[in-house]
Amino acid sequence: MTTYTAPVDDMMFLYEKLRNNKFYNELDKYKDVTPDLVKNILEEAAKINQNLILPLAKAGDEQPAVLENGVVRTPPGYKEAYKKYIEDGWTSLSCDPKYGGQGMPKTVSAFFDEMLSSASLSFKLYSELSIGAYNCINHHATDDVKKKFLPKMVEGKWSGTMCLTEPVCGTDLGLLKTKAVEQSDGTYKLTGQKIFITSGDHDLTENIIHLVIARSSDSPSGTRGISLFLVPKFIVNEDGSLGPRNGISTGSIESKMGIKGSATCVLNFDEAAGYMIGPKNKGLNSMFTMMNLERIVVGIQGLGISEIAYQNSLIYSKERKQGKSNKNNSSNGSADFIIEHADIRRSLLNMKSIIEGERALCFWLSQQTEVSLNHNIEEVKQEAADYVSLMTPVVKALFTDMGSEITSEAMQIFGGYGYTKDQGIEQLYRDNRITPIYEGTNSVQAIDLVFRKLINKNGDIIDRYIKMIKKDLENNNEKLSPFIKDLNIYLDKLISFTTWIKDKVENSKDDANAACNDYLKVLGLIAVGHSWIKVLEVSFNDYDNNKEFYEDKIQTARFFFQRVLPRIDTHCISAMSGSGYIMDFKFN
Amino acid sequence: MTTYTAPVDDMMFLYEKLRNNKFYNELDKYKDVTPDLVKNILEEAAKINQNLILPLAKAGDEQPAVLENGVVRTPPGYKEAYKKYIEDGWTSLSCDPKYGGQGMPKTVSAFFDEMLSSASLSFKLYSELSIGAYNCINHHATDDVKKKFLPKMVEGKWSGTMCLTEPVCGTDLGLLKTKAVEQSDGTYKLTGQKIFITSGDHDLTENIIHLVIARSSDSPSGTRGISLFLVPKFIVNEDGSLGPRNGISTGSIESKMGIKGSATCVLNFDEAAGYMIGPKNKGLNSMFTMMNLERIVVGIQGLGISEIAYQNSLIYSKERKQGKSNKNNSSNGSADFIIEHADIRRSLLNMKSIIEGERALCFWLSQQTEVSLNHNIEEVKQEAADYVSLMTPVVKALFTDMGSEITSEAMQIFGGYGYTKDQGIEQLYRDNRITPIYEGTNSVQAIDLVFRKLINKNGDIIDRYIKMIKKDLENNNEKLSPFIKDLNIYLDKLISFTTWIKDKVENSKDDANAACNDYLKVLGLIAVGHSWIKVLEVSFNDYDNNKEFYEDKIQTARFFFQRVLPRIDTHCISAMSGSGYIMDFKFN
Repeated sequence: MTTYTAPVDDMMFLYEKLRNNKFYNELDKYKDVTPDLVKNILEEAAKINQNLILPLAKAGDEQPAVLENGVVRTPPGYKEAYKKYIEDGWTSLSCDPKYGGQGMPKTVSAFFDEMLSSASLSFKLYSELSIGAYNCINHHATDDVKKKFLPKMVEGKWSGTMCLTEPVCGTDLGLLKTKAVEQSDGTYKLTGQKIFITSGDHDLTENIIHLVIARSSDSPSGTRGISLFLVPKFIVNEDGSLGPRNGISTGSIESKMGIKGSATCVLNFDEAAGYMIGPKNKGLNSMFTMMNLERIVVGIQGLGISEIAYQNSLIYSKERKQGKSNKNNSSNGSADFIIEHADIRRSLLNMKSIIEGERALCFWLSQQTEVSLNHNIEEVKQEAADYVSLMTPVVKALFTDMGSEITSEAMQIFGGYGYTKDQGIEQLYRDNRITPIYEGTNSVQAIDLVFRKLINKNGDIIDRYIKMIKKDLENNNEKLSPFIKDLNIYLDKLISFTTWIKDKVENSKDDANAACNDYLKVLGLIAVGHSWIKVLEVSFNDYDNNKEFYEDKIQTARFFFQRVLPRIDTHCISAMSGSGYIMDFKFN
Repeated sequence: MTTYTAPVDDMMFLYEKLRNNKFYNELDKYKDVTPDLVKNILEEAAKINQNLILPLAKAGDEQPAVLENGVVRTPPGYKEAYKKYIEDGWTSLSCDPKYGGQGMPKTVSAFFDEMLSSASLSFKLYSELSIGAYNCINHHATDDVKKKFLPKMVEGKWSGTMCLTEPVCGTDLGLLKTKAVEQSDGTYKLTGQKIFITSGDHDLTENIIHLVIARSSDSPSGTRGISLFLVPKFIVNEDGSLGPRNGISTGSIESKMGIKGSATCVLNFDEAAGYMIGPKNKGLNSMFTMMNLERIVVGIQGLGISEIAYQNSLIYSKERKQGKSNKNNSSNGSADFIIEHADIRRSLLNMKSIIEGERALCFWLSQQTEVSLNHNIEEVKQEAADYVSLMTPVVKALFTDMGSEITSEAMQIFGGYGYTKDQGIEQLYRDNRITPIYEGTNSVQAIDLVFRKLINKNGDIIDRYIKMIKKDLENNNEKLSPFIKDLNIYLDKLISFTTWIKDKVENSKDDANAACNDYLKVLGLIAVGHSWIKVLEVSFNDYDNNKEFYEDKIQTARFFFQRVLPRIDTHCISAMSGSGYIMDFKFN
């Protein structure tokens, strides 16, 4: 069984010392979100995650969600915990007060997302898509629809889903077959099958609001004929009360390697009543409002699972004695705690330096997200939106791949015990493994980054991003200079790689395609390195006020610069070898 | 459900064209092992693995081994399959004809080990340790003991185990507590608890022969007081018939992430009768005879699981249509098979180039092993033994880590489907994950390599190994030269790293310890690259006789040199950054 202590100190450090984005600080709506308030929220969040939700992880793994007589039953304890969870208002954290939300910024809700991912990803998934659906409805629906659906969703009494995938289309949504036929009253009847629907059915809420992409019967084939529909499990009457069951049934739920507490459903729509949300045939655009924010949250899932894996392997390494360290000269059989061994320490610091760097990057991205949504100057909004768009695939893919690495390293520290069910580590390894796959596989993220995000209609985004980092590196702090020197070396490698890949996107697409995963990793490592520079700047300037904390940060950063950043070398060399020999290969 | 086609062609290519070790070819005992005979064996082996054993993988995962009323029951179908398996003589393949074995060299049995690992690792584990126990008894026991135990073990009617680990000691066997008290007749009574005992109990054989390390009551503490004992589940009478049950009971079996068909037992020894094997207090040395060969087999497990994961993802990539390739200009929704996408091809070639390179390295190592065991010139034997000793940790750790990488890449190609139980891919990912842990974690392998294998009492082994590669690279074949040039660049990096690490082993052990995993990877990648050079040499020289086959080899090698070998850069840079900042870190 794993233990978990929410990293409130590190989060508060970020909130107090790294909230240095001028535009973010100009946002009126968050003027009252003081550090004291945030600290209160995080401490309450820590309690519920550590005490109420953490035990659900093991429960859900041992007694997975099941489909019984057409109804999905969540694992033991989920219902009671969910009741308390919504009573305490956690589903409403980042929602608009207009609909009953608490109006907290993403800089706060992202911390909660991380904690909840650490405690139980399966449990988290029952409310996670609700937030996505809330955002999508809030952004694209009419006021009537918003008034009818949002308050209950914010309250957590109703939940939401995202219905995209079908048996023949996952990545390639242009292939979708679900049909929507317009009725005389302007509503639609949807018929088709959706698969891999997270929380597609369950017993935690009174209603489930499905956001479904489908093709209206008079729409063209391909991605240009897709519209978005709101399709509730139970029809909602005009007065907001629940009417009859809609034409949606759960065909089956998946038997999966991990996140067994989460119900992944096959949903059959049989003339189900639906309401079009947003403009006709622009459904993919509307859905991507939801998808993009969701992708960042999936990155945060990887971060949260990494954190709990690290914490447990650190504790174990201080309890398990095995072998002598190089300092131990005793000639009897006495052994040292394994944390005394250099190789174990290296592994622990690898985890820690990645996790804390990622958290800092994520905090920067949360600020940018808020600016992109709420600043009153269009230009400022747009620039932030461009950075968010650039970093979304990076955070999704890098953090989740690192989650695989870190949960694997944690298991390795546990040795044979790590492979057994008792310690809970192997569950983290299995649970995390969905994150590089869902919401677009990490290869899809890399292709998105390289082919669509580097340059967009607003110009050369990656060039602007690199210039921003360059500017941040113009810092005369002497103690920072070795770190800045290292990052500059690798930034130059990113610049060369960027020039190369932009050319390939134009002139040799397969070369770019075969290199895109490496490119994403390089950009991601630079972004984490850049975040560490900002952490270091504070650490050196504010050193005397909290020596122990800052010394820990400085040494952790040192590890990242010495041992993690050099991964860039291999990525650059192998990716830029081109793809002719790959495309010509005959896979007989 | 996975499919599997044993790679007999590639194995026969190695057996026919790469069996070029002069000393190996001098071994009289294998003169009759002609390619025709080997081909017959491999074709029969392919049949039994593809047809009889492959289905056991899923069966064992769905209905794991269980402990019922103190008795371990194997999964459905295991008993019937095991009966056929021993009737066909597969347990005796590499054993001495004196005891009923078929006397095949490791160059052949290693191929069988690979196939069996691909088909079902859990099933394999019921006979795998028998071979280890056979080797250990054959090497260290008296003739009487050999005559009494070996024929039944060779026949497969009895199986064997290795009992090392105890609750407080895995890596660090000096801590062991199991006691052996000498009796007046020269036998011993053993008391203690052993954990993580693979196939510690099961219902496939009539008897189980445990090889147990324990401390004789008058022996010193630490590793210098450990002796090796043979402890049978049922006492064996003088006439070879089975007597009463010995004092061994199965306390529990582990609930594990994977290899669920395999019973991992807690064994309680309560005054169990045992016979000392080999010299008193030298038990660890005797056990390591078994352990070292076993570690190579664990490496082969990683290779076998990689092969079947690759095969299934290749098939899937030719069946699944999703997205347009860069060549597809159609404007309707038509999609291409995912194997048309550069990034998927890159991933497939990554797997293939590693797998085939590993298989060639393993074949070279099998030849060296046979020379080390059977050559009649002591000096030749010793040199081969040194190479085997150097490469054992490399093959164990590299192949199993690559198994984690390759099964993960294969799952990624399957997308969401890969995470469900239906495809069998996620099982390969889970089953393989034990291989970097058991028989000594991969960090233990790396420490063993760096601190004990580079230089031994016979001299500077790594220096001799590097010189051998250098000599093999003195080749004037023009077509080979770009490959040789690349390998030489990386060989020079290995040489610098070696000089650095030898110095650190002497003068700064923590630096060496923190670098040892990277060093193992670098040496391993060079060893695989070297094996590819030998494959390429044949491919170019014999090109016209089998163009399609050799072209495939040449292009696969190209991928390895362009995209896999450059991993060496990062390993060298990060490892040689030292460990001061790691050792000083305060993990509060």
